[in-house]
Amino acid sequence: MQLPIVLQKLESPSDGLPILDILDQSQLPLQIVRLPLSTPEAIQEAIRSLRVRGAPAIGGAAALGLAVCACRFPERTREAFLAHLHQTGDFLKAARPTAVNLAWAIDRCLKRVMESSGEVPALQQLLLEEAQAIIDEDRALCERIGEAGLAVLHPHVSVLTHCNAGALATCGIGTALAPIYKAAEKGWQPVVYSDETRPLLQGARLTAWELSTCGIPVTTICDSMAAQVMREGKIDVVIVGADRVAANGDAANKIGTYQLAIAAQFHHIPFYVAFPYSTIDATLPDGSLIPIEQRSADEIQHCPNAAVYNPAFDVTPHELITGYITERGLLKQLQ
Amino acid sequence: MQLPIVLQKLESPSDGLPILDILDQSQLPLQIVRLPLSTPEAIQEAIRSLRVRGAPAIGGAAALGLAVCACRFPERTREAFLAHLHQTGDFLKAARPTAVNLAWAIDRCLKRVMESSGEVPALQQLLLEEAQAIIDEDRALCERIGEAGLAVLHPHVSVLTHCNAGALATCGIGTALAPIYKAAEKGWQPVVYSDETRPLLQGARLTAWELSTCGIPVTTICDSMAAQVMREGKIDVVIVGADRVAANGDAANKIGTYQLAIAAQFHHIPFYVAFPYSTIDATLPDGSLIPIEQRSADEIQHCPNAAVYNPAFDVTPHELITGYITERGLLKQLQ
Repeated sequence: MQLPIVLQKLESPSDGLPILDILDQSQLPLQIVRLPLSTPEAIQEAIRSLRVRGAPAIGGAAALGLAVCACRFPERTREAFLAHLHQTGDFLKAARPTAVNLAWAIDRCLKRVMESSGEVPALQQLLLEEAQAIIDEDRALCERIGEAGLAVLHPHVSVLTHCNAGALATCGIGTALAPIYKAAEKGWQPVVYSDETRPLLQGARLTAWELSTCGIPVTTICDSMAAQVMREGKIDVVIVGADRVAANGDAANKIGTYQLAIAAQFHHIPFYVAFPYSTIDATLPDGSLIPIEQRSADEIQHCPNAAVYNPAFDVTPHELITGYITERGLLKQLQ
Repeated sequence: MQLPIVLQKLESPSDGLPILDILDQSQLPLQIVRLPLSTPEAIQEAIRSLRVRGAPAIGGAAALGLAVCACRFPERTREAFLAHLHQTGDFLKAARPTAVNLAWAIDRCLKRVMESSGEVPALQQLLLEEAQAIIDEDRALCERIGEAGLAVLHPHVSVLTHCNAGALATCGIGTALAPIYKAAEKGWQPVVYSDETRPLLQGARLTAWELSTCGIPVTTICDSMAAQVMREGKIDVVIVGADRVAANGDAANKIGTYQLAIAAQFHHIPFYVAFPYSTIDATLPDGSLIPIEQRSADEIQHCPNAAVYNPAFDVTPHELITGYITERGLLKQLQ
């Protein structure tokens, strides 16, 4: 099983300096294009244009991207170097202002160098190490989420998922798809149904591509077909990711997740949400406080005289969630 | 309020013979194109390519199309004319073999001429009259469905619908949308949310176009957003059409209807199905016997190595249906 390489550090063939090499997800599944990035402008554009997407993957790309840029800074004094570094960090953060992991990863790297008293070459090295640590930690989290999720699967399980919370969204084997990869690794034969996930079709484009590339049978359905597929007895369990989870277990995820959870409950099919424990925002007592971003009408509009309502996320109340798959294990409830 | 003219009889400017004039729905909403049709090949192609669609509209187009063709037959003897007529009828029926109304309308017209002893000019006139009768009857049915449906609306109602069961699908004001037109006629101010209806987007393309053309506020959402919109309190009632209804009230309609009915029940929102009473197939005791047509994978496929499951319809069990809006009134149950 060969997982796609979402991002990695390579050496530039011209000057030997490190570069950020990413898989351009905006071109999947039609074309498999890798982009070598080494300037703040190119890295910001890649994040903004969803060439790299998924909170953990964005965090890893931003951290490694910042380090790669810093290796090219002309400044030779610590003070001038740090000023340039902060400026570049702010520039990269502006790529997607609402992506919590992006700011978190940049800030972690900045903090690390500020705590060091080293000179420029040492700081550049430190940034590369910190980026690698962020990537390695995420990879390890994915592994542990995958192991925890095995408890809800069996050797011939059929899983329904929504959007893409797979390898393409992380630095490792994903969150919602991690248990499926772990099952395949054990020799089990999981099959997956993937909602196409309107309006941006991450399911039809990304989940279908990544699973089929890894040899795991995947069937794309329209979002509106999930209940019918459940009714036909084709689904044993639903696993989705989460963008933000409130203290009581209410989970914000891609629009359509809530409707899917209702359909699962109606058919008595267990519904799990998989995420790293850090996704829980303990400052939010419940999901009603999670803001719902509205996206552009263009994504849906066919008829210029009709209005469009296009929420990017919805919140699934904890009552509809059977359990939470995290690196701390399978939790029946959060409180 | 100016409803779109789905189909009508016009006179050919060249020879004065009647022609079938249709609105080409396959080009909506980007272009408003009318097609003058007078040959079996052109009429068959228009039905097959969904230029005219919706069971009652197909029936009307087929009947008027058959009459228009028959007005151009070269045969002058009754026997030769009838042979040509049957051949043309079979040819038109082949446009969409599963469309029940298509065969029904053709057979009704053929039966009418077979019962007459008239000569060719009289038979041609009879065919035109029978086609007009089919169209007029459908228009009257739509009016009565609309009046019956007023009982579930109020002056500031917000209605959610799926696919297109509107004027564009019939010879009149539609079925699911008929009560909305009747409400607007009374001076009420209904607003409509329209599922985009993947994979063919009849909601985003057709329902949004026809309602906005008539000045009724309409908002397009992705199919997966319906539950979220319900949760936000934006929907008072759901009204959908039906392709076939079993004796116990189980209703087959466009894929996604079943999932919508589950979401409506979860939110305690009434869910109505609107159709002419003839849609009930009394030979089917329940919906499990309604065959579910599978459509082409191309409509969904983005990733060639992934499978696709693409049922065109689903069946909503009567337990999820609050009532039936028919020309016989608002029925709480069918049995």
